[in-house]
Amino acid sequence: MTTAPRKRVLSGMQPSGLMHLGNYLGALENWKALQEDYECFFFVADWHALSTNYADTSRIREFVRELLIDWLAAGIDPKRSTVFIQSHIPEHAVLHLLLSMMVPVSWLERNPTYKEKQDEIKEKDLSTYGFLGYPVLQAADILLYKPDFVPVGKDQLPHLELTRELARRFNDIYKKPVFPEPKEHLTKFPKVLGTDGRKMSKSYGNTINLSDTEPVVRQKLKTMVTDPARVRRTDPGNPDVCPVYEFHKIYSPPAVQAQINTDCRTAAIGCIDCKKLVADEIVARMAPMWEARASLISHPSRIDEIAQEGSQRAAIIAKATLAEVNEAMKI
Amino acid sequence: MTTAPRKRVLSGMQPSGLMHLGNYLGALENWKALQEDYECFFFVADWHALSTNYADTSRIREFVRELLIDWLAAGIDPKRSTVFIQSHIPEHAVLHLLLSMMVPVSWLERNPTYKEKQDEIKEKDLSTYGFLGYPVLQAADILLYKPDFVPVGKDQLPHLELTRELARRFNDIYKKPVFPEPKEHLTKFPKVLGTDGRKMSKSYGNTINLSDTEPVVRQKLKTMVTDPARVRRTDPGNPDVCPVYEFHKIYSPPAVQAQINTDCRTAAIGCIDCKKLVADEIVARMAPMWEARASLISHPSRIDEIAQEGSQRAAIIAKATLAEVNEAMKI
Ligand code: SF4
Ligand code: SF4
Repeated sequence: MTTAPRKRVLSGMQPSGLMHLGNYLGALENWKALQEDYECFFFVADWHALSTNYADTSRIREFVRELLIDWLAAGIDPKRSTVFIQSHIPEHAVLHLLLSMMVPVSWLERNPTYKEKQDEIKEKDLSTYGFLGYPVLQAADILLYKPDFVPVGKDQLPHLELTRELARRFNDIYKKPVFPEPKEHLTKFPKVLGTDGRKMSKSYGNTINLSDTEPVVRQKLKTMVTDPARVRRTDPGNPDVCPVYEFHKIYSPPAVQAQINTDCRTAAIGCIDCKKLVADEIVARMAPMWEARASLISHPSRIDEIAQEGSQRAAIIAKATLAEVNEAMKI
Repeated sequence: MTTAPRKRVLSGMQPSGLMHLGNYLGALENWKALQEDYECFFFVADWHALSTNYADTSRIREFVRELLIDWLAAGIDPKRSTVFIQSHIPEHAVLHLLLSMMVPVSWLERNPTYKEKQDEIKEKDLSTYGFLGYPVLQAADILLYKPDFVPVGKDQLPHLELTRELARRFNDIYKKPVFPEPKEHLTKFPKVLGTDGRKMSKSYGNTINLSDTEPVVRQKLKTMVTDPARVRRTDPGNPDVCPVYEFHKIYSPPAVQAQINTDCRTAAIGCIDCKKLVADEIVARMAPMWEARASLISHPSRIDEIAQEGSQRAAIIAKATLAEVNEAMKI
């Protein structure tokens, strides 16, 4: 009996800061699940990070390393999944250049996130050629590995559609089906709130990072905002508007959630105890990651080895695809 | 006694068709002269050719080969000069990508040739991302080799200025003088007219190609337009408005030029004889190239070897520069 080859999935993350629980719950847990069923390629998109951070690259290497540590500590298995670094594979830049020749500027200008991000990140000058073209680099990243699926949130569907359009355009122009169109693997990203009650985001400074120590995590939860109307211990609270309760919904067993939902509304539980309960749950879930982190950090060459091995494996596929591309384009 | 190292020059040509006398007199003769005094890097800009020809790449390989043959046949010496092919050096694409992150789109939109070329080549869709960004690729091509000089015509000065601006911007942002600013080596491109009296250009179909055979060259000159007012043999002509006379000015000795200038105006010479005179001069100058071409074509592997050796030499420098770039950017 033979088994069908596993379908391939490709996904990347930018090394633009330390990973936090929002990233973990949104992307990394999903990757771990994908790894069970698919042949996975996970890459550190360090060139992409330049599109918004070219003016200050001082911490990129540190962030690349931390990202790898977080992935591995969270359970991404470099034996089963190919873990690599974008900038180790020049073929990404070559395919980006080749695809750039056949992308109408209008496709990029109509990309909804182009203007959005420019508005969002006002303090930086994002009217650069590279920022305009990052969907082209993304398309190159994806198409090089011919994945069956790309995990995306709903808001990223336009990017994947541009990748598919480019795949079709290439295949049409050069009359060879070099690039299969990758399908989306729709991913629901839970909304994770930060310690100030806004969406958890490093730009808000409200994150709980995977690399935080236990005392730091507990301290951050202690000072986390709660239902703002609950001023005194004796005031009843409303879990529906409390960001701490959002963590309970993610981390606490249903019975505990139900109990708190009742006890908060009757002031039977105080916020200090409520936070302690969720802190215990979060710490329990983070503990194995912290252990794995500590072990990785004490064997720093292991991280380099994994990145190198992964990049070697990825390079073989990238080179093969680029050879097909050159053959199709007759260059 | 030690001699100062020779200054470095870099220049490229697109493989967008067969080379003709206009290209030869404009660029290649200049390269031959530069080769005497400088350490020269001459490259076939095959990726650049895609910016206007991505939709039909069927003849690119042939044009790359023909270009190399023309260069070598014309006297570019691969022992003294490094002759290479852009697409053999992925570092061009990598540096292009890195520079793209720091080029404001407005720098590219204000590039005068961007709109001009779009207007000129109306039959093709040139509103692509790659076409907008070709000065970025050009900057990468140049900066990788840190040349002291780049030969340019006056009309290309804005491109070189953009390369210099990018060099300054990179050095400023990353606080390392990685890229010296290349200086222009101003080149006067003689205006070479085609057989129809317009500027010689492959898009007009009025060229005399370096790869034309002697009978073809003679035939093309025979049917070349002359002073349109000189209808009969007995009509006096005006060399000032005759494209054939332009060839005399390039190829014939001054005494012959003077003689024709007189004889044409008095109808002492007929156009047939006049053309025969200039055809003899042109053929005499092209004959050594034809011989060299024939010898190269009969040793096809020699051409591949030269391109490979050159690309290997170029790659060493390109890799060293990119390592410096990565170090400065800390990626
Ligand atoms: S008891 Fe818990 S859910 Fe209720 S307001 Fe306090 S922290 Fe929030
Ligand atoms: S004689 Fe020569 S220069 Fe005079 S019109 Fe004829 S081709 Fe031209």
